[in-house]
Amino acid sequence: METFTLGSDMGDSLTIREVAQIAGVSIATVSRAVNRSGPVSREARDAINRAIEQSGFRPNNIGRQLKTARTHTIGVLVPSLKNPIFADALTGLEDTAGKAGYNVLLAASGYCAEKEVSAVETFLRSRVEGMVLTVADETRSRALDILGTSGIPYVLLFNPAGRVDVSSVSVDNRLAAYQLVESLIGLGHERITMIAGRLSESDRSVERQAGYLRALNNHGLPEGDIVEVGFENPDLASRVAELEQRRHPPSAYFCSTDMLAIAMIRALSALGKRVPDDASVVGFDGIAIGEHLTPSLATAVQPAEAMGDWAARHLLARIVSGESIVHQVFPHRIRSGESRGLPGRAFRRANSGKSSDMP
Amino acid sequence: METFTLGSDMGDSLTIREVAQIAGVSIATVSRAVNRSGPVSREARDAINRAIEQSGFRPNNIGRQLKTARTHTIGVLVPSLKNPIFADALTGLEDTAGKAGYNVLLAASGYCAEKEVSAVETFLRSRVEGMVLTVADETRSRALDILGTSGIPYVLLFNPAGRVDVSSVSVDNRLAAYQLVESLIGLGHERITMIAGRLSESDRSVERQAGYLRALNNHGLPEGDIVEVGFENPDLASRVAELEQRRHPPSAYFCSTDMLAIAMIRALSALGKRVPDDASVVGFDGIAIGEHLTPSLATAVQPAEAMGDWAARHLLARIVSGESIVHQVFPHRIRSGESRGLPGRAFRRANSGKSSDMP
Repeated sequence: METFTLGSDMGDSLTIREVAQIAGVSIATVSRAVNRSGPVSREARDAINRAIEQSGFRPNNIGRQLKTARTHTIGVLVPSLKNPIFADALTGLEDTAGKAGYNVLLAASGYCAEKEVSAVETFLRSRVEGMVLTVADETRSRALDILGTSGIPYVLLFNPAGRVDVSSVSVDNRLAAYQLVESLIGLGHERITMIAGRLSESDRSVERQAGYLRALNNHGLPEGDIVEVGFENPDLASRVAELEQRRHPPSAYFCSTDMLAIAMIRALSALGKRVPDDASVVGFDGIAIGEHLTPSLATAVQPAEAMGDWAARHLLARIVSGESIVHQVFPHRIRSGESRGLPGRAFRRANSGKSSDMP
Repeated sequence: METFTLGSDMGDSLTIREVAQIAGVSIATVSRAVNRSGPVSREARDAINRAIEQSGFRPNNIGRQLKTARTHTIGVLVPSLKNPIFADALTGLEDTAGKAGYNVLLAASGYCAEKEVSAVETFLRSRVEGMVLTVADETRSRALDILGTSGIPYVLLFNPAGRVDVSSVSVDNRLAAYQLVESLIGLGHERITMIAGRLSESDRSVERQAGYLRALNNHGLPEGDIVEVGFENPDLASRVAELEQRRHPPSAYFCSTDMLAIAMIRALSALGKRVPDDASVVGFDGIAIGEHLTPSLATAVQPAEAMGDWAARHLLARIVSGESIVHQVFPHRIRSGESRGLPGRAFRRANSGKSSDMP
C-alpha cells in the first residue's frame, strides 16, 4: 500500500487509512480521489478535501514516483534568463507544463558547455521525464551526447534543426538574417558589419552569419567584417571605436541578437554617433522592449512564448503518447524600426570623397 | 542496500555491484565515490567514471531521496518572468543554489493568488526542502498560510517584511518611493500622478504608494491622483488620454515599476507628448535595460541579482543549519535618468494661465 507522509513533518506520517477515517469514506475512495484514478462522488470529494485540509495531509510524491517511475517533472535548460527571449519562452513553457500537471526544473548555462553537461546530469539524476534545452551548439554538444544515451525524450528550443533524430523548434535563422541584411542593402547600405555573439557559444549566431554573408554575396557586395563578442558583458566600446575611426566606417550594423543591438546603440551613442542618422543598427529576436526603445529596434522577430508553449506540448506528447520526432519551424517576422534608415552622413561623406578621388 | 537504475531505461536496473565489477574496485569504493561520503583514490575515481560513462549508470536520486528525505530541491515562485526584475533575481538565485548542489523548481503565478496556492501545493508535494517566493500580498496570502503550517523554511523575496516570523529580503520600498517623488518635487513638479500596479496584486505597490503620498504631504502638495492598472497587459492608452486632456494635466508620472514606466512613455508618445519635455516619467526597479532607453529611465534601483543570491544563501542556511529568521533590507539607489526633467510645457502653460486668472 502507498504510504503518505504529513507535509508538516517528514518523519511523522499520516496514512491514507487515517484520512479515510476522518473523512468517513473508504480507503479506496481516498486513493481514487488523491490519485485521480477513478470516479469519486462530490460529497466524498468534499469530505476528503476537508479532512486533508484539517490534517495537513499531503500525498508523498516521492513515494509515488518511485513506484510509478513518473515524476511529472521536466528539465529546462536555457543559456541565460537575462535575455528576455529566453524568459519569454520559459513563460510559455512553464504555463503549458503547469496546466498539464508537470513541474519545471530550471537551469541556466551562462553559455558554458560545462554547465550544460552538469545541468543535464542533474536533470537525469532527478528523473525528469523529458527536457527542453537551448544548447550552445547542437552539432557538438557533450550534454546532448549524454542525453542521447539516456533515451529520455527532449526538445531543442531555438537551436537550428541540425540532427534528424531530435525534435526541435526554431525559426529559419539563416533566412531571417538574409532578409534583414537584404533590407539594409535595399536602403543603399554597402558597408554592413556584423556584430556576432561568439560563434562557439551559439549555433544560431553561426546560422545568422551565413544568412548575412549570403545576402552580401548575392548582391555583389564584398564580404563584410564580423566582430565576435561574448554574450555575457560584451565589451563593445573599444571594438566599435576602432570601427568608427576608420576612414570608411560601416554605415550599418547587423547584430546577432537584440541585446547586442541595444548594447551597440549605446556604444555608438557614447561615441557621439546617432542611430540611424550616423549608422543603422538592426537586431535579431524581437524582444518586446525593442518596440519601446528610441529609436525603436528593427529586428527579426521570433515568437518566443509560442515556441516555448509548442516545446512543452510536443515534449509532453512525446512522453505520454510517444509522439515521433518533429522539426517545427515557426515563421519569423521582420519588424521595421527607427534604428534602420538610409545610409548615414559618414557613408555619404565617404562616398563623395570616393568620387572626388576619381579622375 | 541502495539500488541504482540505468538512466537509459527506468525499468532496466544496473546495480552498484555491476559498476564495481566493471571498474575493478570494491562496492564500498563506488558508494563513496557516488555519494561523496568518503575519500577515493584518483585511480579508482577515474576507473569508476569510465565505468559509469560506458554503462550509462546513474544513481537514482528518487530512491536516495526517499531514504534520506533530502531532495536537494528548492521551489521558487515569482509573479512573472516577463519583468526582468524577476528574471534577474532568479539568475542570482539559480546560480547560487546550483553551486550548492540544489535544484530549482520554478513556477510563475501571473500575479494570481489562486496560482500561488497551487504552486505552493505542488512544491510541497514535490518535497522541496525550502522555498523562495514573491507573493501578491504577504499579509493576506493563502499560499503563505498553507506554507506556514508545513514547517518548511522559506524566504520572501521583494515582499516588504511585514511578518516577524518569516525571513525576507527587500529594499525599503516606501523610503525609495519617497525619495523618488521628492526629487520630482525638488524640480518644481506639483501635479504628480502615480501609475500603480494593482494594489491587490502587489504589496510593493502599496508601500510605494505610501511613500508617494507622504512625499506630497510633507511638501504641502495636495493628495495626488493614483491610477491603478493590472500588471499583465496594462491598458494605459485610454487612462492616459483622459489625464492628458485635462485642463491641468500632470507634469510628472511616478510609475510603480519600470515596466509600467516604459508602457507609460509609450502611451504618452502615442498621444504626441514627449518625455521629459511635456511630462516627466519615473519608474521603480532599476532593470538594466532602463539605462539603454531613450530617454534613459529615472528610477529606484533594486539590486535584484544580489537579492536573489542572498535569498538562496539564506534559505540554504536555514535548511542546512537551521539559521534563524532574518529580515534583510538591501540598499536601493536612486538613478538619475533623462526621463525626469523640469516641469514641461503643459505645466508652464497651465501655470501662466493660472496667474492670468488671478485678479
